[in-house]
Amino acid sequence: MQDEFLALLKNKYGVVFKNIDLLTQAFTHSSYVNEHRHLELNDNERLEFLGDAVLEVIVSDYLFKHFTELPEGKLTKLRATIVKEDSLAQFAKDCQFDRFIRLGKGEESSNGRKRSSLLCDLFEAFLGALYLDQGTDKVSEFIYQVVIPKVESGAFSHEMDYKTVLQEVLQKNGDILIEYVLVNEEGPAHERTFYVEVSAGGQVLGTGSGKSKKNAEQKAAEVALTALENK
Amino acid sequence: MQDEFLALLKNKYGVVFKNIDLLTQAFTHSSYVNEHRHLELNDNERLEFLGDAVLEVIVSDYLFKHFTELPEGKLTKLRATIVKEDSLAQFAKDCQFDRFIRLGKGEESSNGRKRSSLLCDLFEAFLGALYLDQGTDKVSEFIYQVVIPKVESGAFSHEMDYKTVLQEVLQKNGDILIEYVLVNEEGPAHERTFYVEVSAGGQVLGTGSGKSKKNAEQKAAEVALTALENK
Repeated sequence: MQDEFLALLKNKYGVVFKNIDLLTQAFTHSSYVNEHRHLELNDNERLEFLGDAVLEVIVSDYLFKHFTELPEGKLTKLRATIVKEDSLAQFAKDCQFDRFIRLGKGEESSNGRKRSSLLCDLFEAFLGALYLDQGTDKVSEFIYQVVIPKVESGAFSHEMDYKTVLQEVLQKNGDILIEYVLVNEEGPAHERTFYVEVSAGGQVLGTGSGKSKKNAEQKAAEVALTALENK
Repeated sequence: MQDEFLALLKNKYGVVFKNIDLLTQAFTHSSYVNEHRHLELNDNERLEFLGDAVLEVIVSDYLFKHFTELPEGKLTKLRATIVKEDSLAQFAKDCQFDRFIRLGKGEESSNGRKRSSLLCDLFEAFLGALYLDQGTDKVSEFIYQVVIPKVESGAFSHEMDYKTVLQEVLQKNGDILIEYVLVNEEGPAHERTFYVEVSAGGQVLGTGSGKSKKNAEQKAAEVALTALENK
């Protein structure tokens, strides 16, 4: 494994492999193995199988404990968005994993290094290798550095319909009137910002802003949900 | 929770919940919650979300470490078979979970207690509750009592094409001639048993028997794979 990559893992993520062969295997694509048969290498596909499951349980644990008011259907949808191919490929790029995977010549020349599915598999294989090397807690530590901050910054929130969730939460114990009121708007017509206040049974729960009324309503519902969760 | 069930969990599986509310929630179906709104109960759906992921990582870990020669595609297929709805519903019944879930009247009268999807969700919810109560290791202990013995007894082997796997394993490092030879058959025509020997490059790897030549070949391949794994 290249020293530059080992240093990156150590300095940026605090990850130091005990068994460097596992790390090397995670970064070895099947196309590379096929071109170097005499070396009898192992590709990263089995590690990907394992890493996929490890990632899922850590993300599930986080979502379950963090979004205490979200029903199962919404949790499942949010989890699917976080662990889908495009998301994991982006995490692999965020970590610069794409620079260090070993590919066969054909795969390289057909731009495999940029392919979503390949990068997604690579990210999962890395997690699988880290799991075998140091267990769930260490993988969790890594996920909390790379994946969870993106969830918390709302990178996947476009997949969540906060208005629906808020309604479900508030009406759990019977009907209650939920109102969204536009309380302000500002800025020039082509870059206007809208401010919406959400209330339930006459009590204001939160205010949100956005570039459209719809976005501002979603944001207000999200703010209200967070407030309810922390109550 | 009924004493009979608590005793069953303790005596048969060594499971004693610290937080009994979690166990109760796992055994509370949404139909029961809807019929008892004044009690403000929580149903088992969120626990199911969590248990699903916990089960998957434990089974994946087992398959990865146990079937060291199986390629990723086969591992994924085998995992899917083990954690599919019908399998999990059967595990729930094996554990007598169906006797203790709380259902609404409508669900009860429409035979919900026997429905596969409901029992599958119940099994996952129980695992989710146990995970929250005592962590992954305890869930793993339970899975190794209830699920893994079935895998090891070959309950899911019909989903595995051992001949293909053996071929992949043996031809990893170049072509090699694999032969299946019928070495014996016995019993009356309507209940005949066939014996097949598999060899590679002239060396006998294993013998298998079955009610058809095809089954005997699969069995021989399975025996050969196990022998290769333990070499």
